[in-house]
Amino acid sequence: MDKPREECGVLGLWSEEPLDVAGLLHLGLLALQHRGQEAAGIAVSDGKEFLVEKDLGLVNQVFTEERLARLRLGEARLGLAHTRYSTTGSNLRFNAQPLTARTAHGVLAIAHNGNFTNAKPLRDRLLREGATFQSTTDTEVMLLLLARLGHLSLPEAAAEAMKALEGGYSILLMDRRTVVALRDPHGVRPLAIGRLPKGYAFASEPPALELMGARYLRDVRPGEVVWVEEGELKSLQALPPNPAPCAFEWIYFARPDSLLDGVEAYEARVRMGMELFREAPAEADMVVPVPDSGIGAAVGYARSSGLPLEYGLYKNPYAGRTFIQPTQALRDLKTRLKLSPTSAVRGKRVVLIDDSIVRGTTSRHIVAMLREAGAREVHFRVSSPPIRFPCYYGIDTAARKELIAAEKSVEEIRAFIGADTLAFLSEEGVKRAIGGPVCLACFNGRYPAGVPVEGEKLALEIL
Amino acid sequence: MDKPREECGVLGLWSEEPLDVAGLLHLGLLALQHRGQEAAGIAVSDGKEFLVEKDLGLVNQVFTEERLARLRLGEARLGLAHTRYSTTGSNLRFNAQPLTARTAHGVLAIAHNGNFTNAKPLRDRLLREGATFQSTTDTEVMLLLLARLGHLSLPEAAAEAMKALEGGYSILLMDRRTVVALRDPHGVRPLAIGRLPKGYAFASEPPALELMGARYLRDVRPGEVVWVEEGELKSLQALPPNPAPCAFEWIYFARPDSLLDGVEAYEARVRMGMELFREAPAEADMVVPVPDSGIGAAVGYARSSGLPLEYGLYKNPYAGRTFIQPTQALRDLKTRLKLSPTSAVRGKRVVLIDDSIVRGTTSRHIVAMLREAGAREVHFRVSSPPIRFPCYYGIDTAARKELIAAEKSVEEIRAFIGADTLAFLSEEGVKRAIGGPVCLACFNGRYPAGVPVEGEKLALEIL
Amino acid sequence: MDKPREECGVLGLWSEEPLDVAGLLHLGLLALQHRGQEAAGIAVSDGKEFLVEKDLGLVNQVFTEERLARLRLGEARLGLAHTRYSTTGSNLRFNAQPLTARTAHGVLAIAHNGNFTNAKPLRDRLLREGATFQSTTDTEVMLLLLARLGHLSLPEAAAEAMKALEGGYSILLMDRRTVVALRDPHGVRPLAIGRLPKGYAFASEPPALELMGARYLRDVRPGEVVWVEEGELKSLQALPPNPAPCAFEWIYFARPDSLLDGVEAYEARVRMGMELFREAPAEADMVVPVPDSGIGAAVGYARSSGLPLEYGLYKNPYAGRTFIQPTQALRDLKTRLKLSPTSAVRGKRVVLIDDSIVRGTTSRHIVAMLREAGAREVHFRVSSPPIRFPCYYGIDTAARKELIAAEKSVEEIRAFIGADTLAFLSEEGVKRAIGGPVCLACFNGRYPAGVPVEGEKLALEIL
Amino acid sequence: MDKPREECGVLGLWSEEPLDVAGLLHLGLLALQHRGQEAAGIAVSDGKEFLVEKDLGLVNQVFTEERLARLRLGEARLGLAHTRYSTTGSNLRFNAQPLTARTAHGVLAIAHNGNFTNAKPLRDRLLREGATFQSTTDTEVMLLLLARLGHLSLPEAAAEAMKALEGGYSILLMDRRTVVALRDPHGVRPLAIGRLPKGYAFASEPPALELMGARYLRDVRPGEVVWVEEGELKSLQALPPNPAPCAFEWIYFARPDSLLDGVEAYEARVRMGMELFREAPAEADMVVPVPDSGIGAAVGYARSSGLPLEYGLYKNPYAGRTFIQPTQALRDLKTRLKLSPTSAVRGKRVVLIDDSIVRGTTSRHIVAMLREAGAREVHFRVSSPPIRFPCYYGIDTAARKELIAAEKSVEEIRAFIGADTLAFLSEEGVKRAIGGPVCLACFNGRYPAGVPVEGEKLALEIL
Repeated sequence: MDKPREECGVLGLWSEEPLDVAGLLHLGLLALQHRGQEAAGIAVSDGKEFLVEKDLGLVNQVFTEERLARLRLGEARLGLAHTRYSTTGSNLRFNAQPLTARTAHGVLAIAHNGNFTNAKPLRDRLLREGATFQSTTDTEVMLLLLARLGHLSLPEAAAEAMKALEGGYSILLMDRRTVVALRDPHGVRPLAIGRLPKGYAFASEPPALELMGARYLRDVRPGEVVWVEEGELKSLQALPPNPAPCAFEWIYFARPDSLLDGVEAYEARVRMGMELFREAPAEADMVVPVPDSGIGAAVGYARSSGLPLEYGLYKNPYAGRTFIQPTQALRDLKTRLKLSPTSAVRGKRVVLIDDSIVRGTTSRHIVAMLREAGAREVHFRVSSPPIRFPCYYGIDTAARKELIAAEKSVEEIRAFIGADTLAFLSEEGVKRAIGGPVCLACFNGRYPAGVPVEGEKLALEIL
Repeated sequence: MDKPREECGVLGLWSEEPLDVAGLLHLGLLALQHRGQEAAGIAVSDGKEFLVEKDLGLVNQVFTEERLARLRLGEARLGLAHTRYSTTGSNLRFNAQPLTARTAHGVLAIAHNGNFTNAKPLRDRLLREGATFQSTTDTEVMLLLLARLGHLSLPEAAAEAMKALEGGYSILLMDRRTVVALRDPHGVRPLAIGRLPKGYAFASEPPALELMGARYLRDVRPGEVVWVEEGELKSLQALPPNPAPCAFEWIYFARPDSLLDGVEAYEARVRMGMELFREAPAEADMVVPVPDSGIGAAVGYARSSGLPLEYGLYKNPYAGRTFIQPTQALRDLKTRLKLSPTSAVRGKRVVLIDDSIVRGTTSRHIVAMLREAGAREVHFRVSSPPIRFPCYYGIDTAARKELIAAEKSVEEIRAFIGADTLAFLSEEGVKRAIGGPVCLACFNGRYPAGVPVEGEKLALEIL
Repeated sequence: MDKPREECGVLGLWSEEPLDVAGLLHLGLLALQHRGQEAAGIAVSDGKEFLVEKDLGLVNQVFTEERLARLRLGEARLGLAHTRYSTTGSNLRFNAQPLTARTAHGVLAIAHNGNFTNAKPLRDRLLREGATFQSTTDTEVMLLLLARLGHLSLPEAAAEAMKALEGGYSILLMDRRTVVALRDPHGVRPLAIGRLPKGYAFASEPPALELMGARYLRDVRPGEVVWVEEGELKSLQALPPNPAPCAFEWIYFARPDSLLDGVEAYEARVRMGMELFREAPAEADMVVPVPDSGIGAAVGYARSSGLPLEYGLYKNPYAGRTFIQPTQALRDLKTRLKLSPTSAVRGKRVVLIDDSIVRGTTSRHIVAMLREAGAREVHFRVSSPPIRFPCYYGIDTAARKELIAAEKSVEEIRAFIGADTLAFLSEEGVKRAIGGPVCLACFNGRYPAGVPVEGEKLALEIL
Repeated sequence: MDKPREECGVLGLWSEEPLDVAGLLHLGLLALQHRGQEAAGIAVSDGKEFLVEKDLGLVNQVFTEERLARLRLGEARLGLAHTRYSTTGSNLRFNAQPLTARTAHGVLAIAHNGNFTNAKPLRDRLLREGATFQSTTDTEVMLLLLARLGHLSLPEAAAEAMKALEGGYSILLMDRRTVVALRDPHGVRPLAIGRLPKGYAFASEPPALELMGARYLRDVRPGEVVWVEEGELKSLQALPPNPAPCAFEWIYFARPDSLLDGVEAYEARVRMGMELFREAPAEADMVVPVPDSGIGAAVGYARSSGLPLEYGLYKNPYAGRTFIQPTQALRDLKTRLKLSPTSAVRGKRVVLIDDSIVRGTTSRHIVAMLREAGAREVHFRVSSPPIRFPCYYGIDTAARKELIAAEKSVEEIRAFIGADTLAFLSEEGVKRAIGGPVCLACFNGRYPAGVPVEGEKLALEIL
């Protein structure tokens, strides 16, 4: 794993008039594919039928022409979609989302981005009370809570359930009539609302709204429950807001064209690069980004430093999802298959920019490749602080013992990756570049929304 | 549909020593494929891991080499399997069995042959109490009842749940430790127990036991719960027995080499043919069975009548599961593809023997084919009474309005199928041939285990 | 391998008016599936387009709905089809038929049943002259010969090519305009002609004609080339006829409802059973056929002996094409999965009838199963002579050293299979039952159409 | 189609010692995936066995783990690979390469990048002489010529065949013993040689050599035939060289890290951008490349102009190969799905850089998106001349009537795409940037290697 991994992207759609709901959600999923590449799913309804298709794989592997056809309802008006990288619940078919269940609310579907830190004790209590679980995901706990609140409307039940749940999460719910969106009181994970000609759309990031034909309206607020009733957008503040959105969305996860809680990802990245130059300038001939993650910060670093931005590393667009035979010799070629140096770096002093370092092995490969291609010096600059702590709110930063910065000093990391110099952006630098309150728990271990009792990883899988 | 359709076959296995559980269950499923061709599934455990693979399709379509490999556990000791033709719950992937759920008993799997006639009111009550359902099958109701009895052992919970359930059913349950088998108080559907070198096996029909390396021991008794504890077979009479096993198992469903509640299927069929000759002799030159369903009775009819048994109809073994394009011309060729007359019948007076007539269309085709091939007379003899009523205990006899005998007299049926003479075996004849108490509800409308409140078909699908 | 294996079935269709050619050939293939289960293919044309689909697998595995759709031409008028079990050319995708090539005749397709015994020297000569081969089948040699005869019409070229070819073969050819059928001068392999409302059809066996909507007209004569020209059936006697059709077609290969060179397969089999009783009567209680291969002869044996015909062995219709894991224990269950004894044989003296014995292992299993099921005596009767020699004309009888009768006397075979008595039908008995000149080379080593220079097996695969 | 399309990439490998040939060729194919996305194939040999796997699809779709396993030979020492976009021969399975045939040289495989302009008359002659063709590709003509030169060694036969062939082509041949590489006398398409520890490798572009563990040695020279004999690299100048390599390889096709005939693609692109600024400066705030095709030239334009390079367009890496339902509304979103503007351009005057314009529709979409995102001015600069003529040497530039520059003036194109200004690089600018003789036929219609007699497109498909 080269990068921390976002666990999920979520999408929802509600329209007064019939739409090609499955087709639009499919496009939206393609716009959110970077948020999860292990499974994808879509649920649609016309008020009567309720269809779900989901499976392991990339969006375009799961949604073949045939499978999309199975989701086509002539009068479809609402739907959910989900793209997943698993953090809790292993990578099994039955953990793919949207999860569905038949409950006192009728059929319910749920799509979830984030984690509940108290899922284990809640599940234990529900089991003792006679509940049945079909998956090993923490998401299903929410579904079970809702099933027990059948006397309330779905939005009210959702607000009630939020009181029992801890952690960082953005969630979409759907029954045959409506779509409900909600965000934890810290707003750790993003969730945006868009306006359709005759309805509303919801998405983890605004560019997905546009692909579904919607105009960005606003973000769901921390602690808020939002839904559509008689064509109107309704809102209910379930819990008092206490914002601490995840800084890593701006550092790396979100698309550069995303606007999150009022701050553009591209601008934040350019500012991180500018801050990075201010904190850690380098004597060099050119700025080279690690494509694609280091591009925004490299633009900022080049802007502040006056150095030219050069395309010193080529990224093979076809290298992504390939079966490489597991002989040692071939595995070593995997980074090479993905990235290779161009002639730009020959004889040059290079400032190499990336957004983060997780285990350091890929960074080490890149530095070696640049030197082999003739780079005279390699000054590694990272546009975020060292990652020292796990995330409990929906990001897989690798196990603590795999995090190079959890064990090693900056100088030790520099020696490991073989750079001439190495510098990370400070926490202050990140905050200045983003400009609002943020969660920096993976850098400093201060968790705004609690930590799980059970330790580093939620243990729902064994029952 | 040419024949009433059995809905399911079930299998279970428990061994003290590690076995190739998936491999043995796979063989057992192949031996029970005639009991359900729409879906197949296997669950296995080694006491820790609990794996399930299931999908729509025939056993050899679902269980490819790759999929069986996924079920291989080095220390596997127990497992369940199921082959399904859907009667309740439409033909959807999520309705395939074994169904599994995480409950207060830990992971539970269930495999079910039969129907609960009170599934709908039970489910409604459970939903009001906060339950969630993952499928639209009546089987899941049992799973939910068990989840609420977490304070009892699994066999005790099963016995308790049986008190709430009505209908005809044979069921296998499994958690990480044990396998539980049970049969409704009327013993409507069969379920046999076999002895493994170090354990026990369970199967809808004994020939499947032998393929799993087990020796037939006895049948599960009506109303009995059976399980393995510390290597011993334990038993508990949950409800007082009141036997009424399904006569159609002997007439058509069961393999001819099956022994059911002490009576061999082949012998019963031969006796039905003998009774049939006694009740309805015919002046003819030869006896011709409709392969394969009429063979046993044809042997009996030939034996009593002294007429030679001839192979007048060839059955193409490859015609089974074929996509035939739905143009009218081609569809008309479908019976012809499956069956065709041989030269044996030319110029002859034929007694044609089949086990039953459902809609009459196939019978009509066969009579016409025989005449076209030169048969001088066709005397149709059926080794069971006319089917006039639906089955509520796990058999799909087609909707009432499709049953030719529900609407027409024997003479009208004869005219429809174009035979020279036609006769059905009497209820008394069936009873004499089998020799014990049986359920004859599909012939006479007397239902020993109750009827559903909602009418002909259980309506669990809309929620 | 339990039985000698036919290598191929061939089909052709030519119509003045547009037809669902692919749909009809698909039905025809299903009727000929018993002649080859390793690959299937269809070629169709409307006079302009020329489409081919073929692959490894059974007909219904290769021809999914989607694949048939790809062959649908609105104005299709002619086509070929082939079902294959490989004798020469290993089981590779590129050896599936119809083979096609672009030649001086335009696109040509060929479907072939049989073998050329001089394929190797012919191919060597063609290679030296600059030819290219796309497959390792002997069939392609014919295609190459035709390509070199571009100055002749296709039927003339076919007649010319026959002069160079030796062996036993039935062949269908097709270009964009016509279909050509031909049969070697000995007529070793069958080929029948049928009449369509506005055209003609061709098939290895007549029942396939009927499924394509055609009426059986006559057989292609030994040494004859037949084709359709301006709606008329044209004929050309390429080589003088010298009939010696394969006796095994009547003994086992052909469907019982097939009429071959004027003799019905079912009748011939019944007569073989009658001859068999005359030659080798047995003191017994019943006649039991090995299903399905022994049924015809068992009817004859029962008729002559006056013994009752009983259904003592159940054949599982789903056991056919199943992946069984290759552990020893499970493999031993394979015969059991396919066949199992019914209660009919308990305490009885059984005459067991089969059409042939190849390696003897399956026969041995069956005898053991019958004894285990309680049979008091087992008298094995075989309705053909011992197979001692390989076939060079399109049948795979297993390698010589696998043929039990090549090495062992009848008494040694009896001891091996464990029967109380054993008898084979004599060559004279076979001839009397069929009633005309036949090829009996696999029994007596007298090859009417020559033998290959290279030895037992044609060696085209290495080049 | 947004861009001219390269038709193919080719790879070869010869080693004295056994290697994971299939694994290495697979990696090499992934490095050449940009040269063809419609089909992929690999052939390998160990001197005895000769295996081929090929199919329609991307490299990672065709080469699943299972399929690669089928190509694994313990002692494999040589192989070929091919990735294809079809220019002649429609997109049919049987046209996938490597093509193979059994000939007087034994089994031969061929992988081909380019086109023969005289394929049609050559094929007509061969057909008249009795040849058979298995495909509709021009490549097979070479195979047929070689088959007729069986008296020569394979390299000599290849040299002889080259005398009969016209056009632009790079070809790899393989039999059980050796690999032969050759390039047409103009060297239109690239082909590089690499040194393996104990052997040699060949590839369309050097980065693929490195992924196969080889070091770049030199290019195959125009008109040269190269092969390995007793471990030595042998060479034969089949035809006198007359270099005119395709300029579009440097403009767009080749990877930026490729070295072609001594000139680095990245450097050539940067120089094109510098020339472009010199010829067509713009008053603006920033340079924005169309990713990824415009990046190299944008770096050069930024360098010469002193303007900052900004990441104004985000390219979704998952948008590539997606099934988009063909409703109008959804199709319009396709460019949007692939590219979207970032906040960088808001309020700015943008110089937008791309390498070429084919039909203009995508360019028009991009300009509109930038304006919508707030760009004040858009100055479009193209780093190559207008494409006015078709390519006959292996590139699909779209039909002439689709080429916007074939019909419209630069001012008309500017109006169509909606830019404020538009400029193309001159032919002289391209030549200066590359620095040697090049083929510029698609810009100026001067074809160094002849044109086909039959008109714009080779017509091999109808036979």
